[in-house]
Amino acid sequence: MIKDPKQTAILSKIHKPGDVRALEGDQMDTLAQELRDIIISQVSAHGGHLAPSLGVIELTLALFRSFDLERDKLVWDVGHQAYAHKLLTGRADAFETLRQKGGISGFPRMAESPYDHFGVGHSSTSISAALGMAMARDLKGEDHEVVAVIGDGSLTAGLAFEGLNQAGDLGRKMVVVLNDNEMSISKNVGALSQFLSRKMTTPFLQRLKSDVEGLLATIPKIGGDLAGYAKRYGDSVKSFFTPGILFEAFHFTYVGPLDGHDTATMVKVFEEVKKLNKPVLVHVMTKKGKGYEPAESDPSHYHGVGEFIPETGLARKFSGSGLPSYTAIFGSTLCSLAAKDDKIIAITAAMPEGTGTECFGKNYPDRFVDVGICEQHAVTFAAGLATQGYKPAVAIYSTFMQRAYDQIVHDVCLQNLNVNFFLDRGGLVGEDGATHHGAFDMSYLRHIPNLVVMAPKDEAELARMMVTAFGHDGPCAVRYPRGTGVGAKVSANPKPIAIGRGELMRDGEDAVVIAIGSRVYPAVEAAMELEEEGALKAAVFNARFVKPLDEKRILELAGRFDRILLVEENALAGGFGSAVLELLAAHDALDGKHVRQLGLPDEFVEHGAQKELRHMLGIDKDGIKRALKTLCG
Amino acid sequence: MIKDPKQTAILSKIHKPGDVRALEGDQMDTLAQELRDIIISQVSAHGGHLAPSLGVIELTLALFRSFDLERDKLVWDVGHQAYAHKLLTGRADAFETLRQKGGISGFPRMAESPYDHFGVGHSSTSISAALGMAMARDLKGEDHEVVAVIGDGSLTAGLAFEGLNQAGDLGRKMVVVLNDNEMSISKNVGALSQFLSRKMTTPFLQRLKSDVEGLLATIPKIGGDLAGYAKRYGDSVKSFFTPGILFEAFHFTYVGPLDGHDTATMVKVFEEVKKLNKPVLVHVMTKKGKGYEPAESDPSHYHGVGEFIPETGLARKFSGSGLPSYTAIFGSTLCSLAAKDDKIIAITAAMPEGTGTECFGKNYPDRFVDVGICEQHAVTFAAGLATQGYKPAVAIYSTFMQRAYDQIVHDVCLQNLNVNFFLDRGGLVGEDGATHHGAFDMSYLRHIPNLVVMAPKDEAELARMMVTAFGHDGPCAVRYPRGTGVGAKVSANPKPIAIGRGELMRDGEDAVVIAIGSRVYPAVEAAMELEEEGALKAAVFNARFVKPLDEKRILELAGRFDRILLVEENALAGGFGSAVLELLAAHDALDGKHVRQLGLPDEFVEHGAQKELRHMLGIDKDGIKRALKTLCG
Repeated sequence: MIKDPKQTAILSKIHKPGDVRALEGDQMDTLAQELRDIIISQVSAHGGHLAPSLGVIELTLALFRSFDLERDKLVWDVGHQAYAHKLLTGRADAFETLRQKGGISGFPRMAESPYDHFGVGHSSTSISAALGMAMARDLKGEDHEVVAVIGDGSLTAGLAFEGLNQAGDLGRKMVVVLNDNEMSISKNVGALSQFLSRKMTTPFLQRLKSDVEGLLATIPKIGGDLAGYAKRYGDSVKSFFTPGILFEAFHFTYVGPLDGHDTATMVKVFEEVKKLNKPVLVHVMTKKGKGYEPAESDPSHYHGVGEFIPETGLARKFSGSGLPSYTAIFGSTLCSLAAKDDKIIAITAAMPEGTGTECFGKNYPDRFVDVGICEQHAVTFAAGLATQGYKPAVAIYSTFMQRAYDQIVHDVCLQNLNVNFFLDRGGLVGEDGATHHGAFDMSYLRHIPNLVVMAPKDEAELARMMVTAFGHDGPCAVRYPRGTGVGAKVSANPKPIAIGRGELMRDGEDAVVIAIGSRVYPAVEAAMELEEEGALKAAVFNARFVKPLDEKRILELAGRFDRILLVEENALAGGFGSAVLELLAAHDALDGKHVRQLGLPDEFVEHGAQKELRHMLGIDKDGIKRALKTLCG
Repeated sequence: MIKDPKQTAILSKIHKPGDVRALEGDQMDTLAQELRDIIISQVSAHGGHLAPSLGVIELTLALFRSFDLERDKLVWDVGHQAYAHKLLTGRADAFETLRQKGGISGFPRMAESPYDHFGVGHSSTSISAALGMAMARDLKGEDHEVVAVIGDGSLTAGLAFEGLNQAGDLGRKMVVVLNDNEMSISKNVGALSQFLSRKMTTPFLQRLKSDVEGLLATIPKIGGDLAGYAKRYGDSVKSFFTPGILFEAFHFTYVGPLDGHDTATMVKVFEEVKKLNKPVLVHVMTKKGKGYEPAESDPSHYHGVGEFIPETGLARKFSGSGLPSYTAIFGSTLCSLAAKDDKIIAITAAMPEGTGTECFGKNYPDRFVDVGICEQHAVTFAAGLATQGYKPAVAIYSTFMQRAYDQIVHDVCLQNLNVNFFLDRGGLVGEDGATHHGAFDMSYLRHIPNLVVMAPKDEAELARMMVTAFGHDGPCAVRYPRGTGVGAKVSANPKPIAIGRGELMRDGEDAVVIAIGSRVYPAVEAAMELEEEGALKAAVFNARFVKPLDEKRILELAGRFDRILLVEENALAGGFGSAVLELLAAHDALDGKHVRQLGLPDEFVEHGAQKELRHMLGIDKDGIKRALKTLCG
């Protein structure tokens, strides 16, 4: 039973952000609790991003009290923490539709609300976007505030640094709120994170300490309060070793750290900060999952979570297939391959759990690197390893690998290095929606020379493709879908697949379906049903390779069948199907052919369950059946 | 007359890097001068990257003396400064072939020399790659050194920051040499650059200063040397405001700044640094163009330069068409459009001269932003501006725009913002070679929903496409080639083109060529010559739009012509031609068709003159003629 916002004492009266400003102090506490209850209740029933949103409830309230969202601009970095923001900006009644098809998005979206000033989903964009808004304001001669809220995890990405560096240089009035919870999705990494948590114990600090002691020792013994001097000196020195010095180096005025769960204090500070006419960084310490014990004690698990029982935090009995996910198969296979090959190194960009590499990290800590939210660095770092004979496995979601496109081209493929990319969440991811679908990977990878691009039909083939990738002395990419496979048994010793070799799944008479990845089995099922129905007999070919194509077999099939259906869970533009068309054109094999393509249309696909979306777009079994019937007229 | 390395006293005896270590001190000075003379002589005769290489001659010699390139790994960031490195690693005799087809590359390349430990071309990869090498070394239990040499310009890119942040965290032994010349290609920007040049005058510093003075004031009047304490305290404080504090925050031991033209001192420091078992940053101050007065006084111009008279530094009389470049047309058109539309903002990523936006910056300083080598930030910053009604023009070379692929998808196109991308150097760039060709833009852009992708046949059409882009309320990309156009007169009031409208350049009978961008005129010439020769009559259609295609007219043409030649200066895979094939398939218009595609093959194209490369790849007039003849049997 999801808690109904209409039944709340305070939230039910908040219709627009400004209503928060009119509340009394004690009403704020009640409101915070109401927001917490609704978020926990909603996410427990339908899944979502729990811990990030629970962590920033007080911060959200403080921002809404201090800033006027009718004119001030607020940019949430990533946006998975914006549930309270949504509840406070006229979307409380729609909140029960969160992340469902036709419902509100799990992330801020400009099209959804005038109070979502910038659409997000990927991390570390907020400072750059806010700086653009600040420049626009100044050009127009307006005087509203611009606020970016960025986590310490997001701050590890180069894009955030680029924004910070220029914001400090331009000196325009803006506020960056650093939401420091010492986490990205997993525990945060990088020198900077240690700096933020003031664990700086470099030789430099030690040298300084001895300098200070030396100086103090030379002060003549007099009657004055030496201890007092020492203390004052010490305080002054200490201030250098707060994170302040770093942000001051970027020309930001630093304020903090503040308790991110003390709304009143944050409001006071924001009011002061608004008086400053320059870039200010407000450092706020928050606890991920705040106010919900299971999430507080395991914030990684409750970062993004499926349905659970709110009283216990335990996952609801999984109503799905009970099969392991592709992610789990990838993780376990990687571990077993690494046991036999000490050149395999696993690299994740802040997502050891999400990518299934967590267990690799435990078993092979020396060969496991979490680079933080740094996809670009992950790839170039892997290239460096590969020059020395290692075989890095770069495990990054398809949508986030977009960040490293140039590094894949320039640092890996141009040098033909044995770096292997494993793109989880290829295709439609479901509820996370347009920012997170892996809709483009076949298109953005297949034109890169030297790169082998594969997509498995099931989990057993994933394991075989992994073996293939590590055994191939050049770059490979394997993309596989979010969710579980079909239950195919994974061999203990998966055999490699010859590069560029597909397989005929079933033969036919009237048409051939050439499918790739997650669309192979639906194509087989469609063909079986059509045959059973007596409608037509279609062959189905599992291409396996987006690149290089199995040219020989595909051309043979094109020789035998005039009707060809190409099916992929990727953008039609430039994807797998267009590769087949190029092949046919190059061999002057188009004449007499009737080719139809199924795949993702030339639009951003919204959120919804994977199954719903695949059905809507006609790439499921039913859609394939329909297309085959049309094709065979 | 290029100076002959064989005629040199010292360089002629250097056959491998180790030979440098055996030289006497005074021989080093002679060698430095020989390197300088040969580099100036070579670049003056054939063009190349002059100022960067002249700036690091002493640094290169110091590195070669201190490190053993047979075992130590040396990664040059960007690599345009590696001419001395090439001359000292067995490539002196080949140096006269620099950047020419079949000759040595203008950048380090692993395939070219065992002493090129990492291939480069794009900036800011060196720390990440070197960290990978350091980890590989430690896993193998080896003990060689790893050195990355990175410029202060390259350090502004997020990728460098990502590498630095993790290198500090992992704590592995490595040396980062910061080659600080206060420049990227142009004058460096960003808060960090001011920090490096110690111009830090923030309120924080002032506050600290008053703290110090306050503390000193409270010291009781005694007989001791107060001035001495004050001085010592002051020195201690000052050390915080060297760049050291920043790198120490990243857990690097900081050494410097050193005079980057004092080889002996640098060698001494490197010898000490080698004893440290942790990440060390050596800050070296160099002068771009050092030792060649014209380059010292105008390092931006002499960063990459065409042929010039070495005695004067003046450009040789341009032997080309004398026509303005696409870059110049873009720059002047942008200025004239901005005069009439105050919503137009120009953004460059450290290349005001290269992109033609320098004059915009002078005329409209308030609406011009150089973001530094930060393509990702450039695009997201533009998205922020566009949310507020501005129309940013993001002018970035095609090859460097690859860095911002995700931001184009996620921040601009998903939100359908009026951000306009101008991709200079689309297609083959010539002598800069594989790292710099704009070979992929049509492929990596055309699958992005909402994006309009155009390529002009000539400079007049470029101007019209610019007007089209700003007038279209959504994202547009215009890509155009390096070099000059055909001399088409640019209108003072260029008219917009209807979105998705191509033009028939000439009609025909036997076949139709559908071409885009730089390939339209060669196609027209080919068709004219073939008709004159009595061979065949081909129609030529200028597609103008990669996306959306002029579906109506292309389908009409496909209805009239069975033989279709598709021509583009872009990767065949997923490019313009494949878009046409997809269109034909979607309309079941393949039957009876014989389609051939010309474009860039599925391999990285090496360096060489544009004309040579286009000829080699069969995409020039001759290649089009040949293909048409084959197609028409």
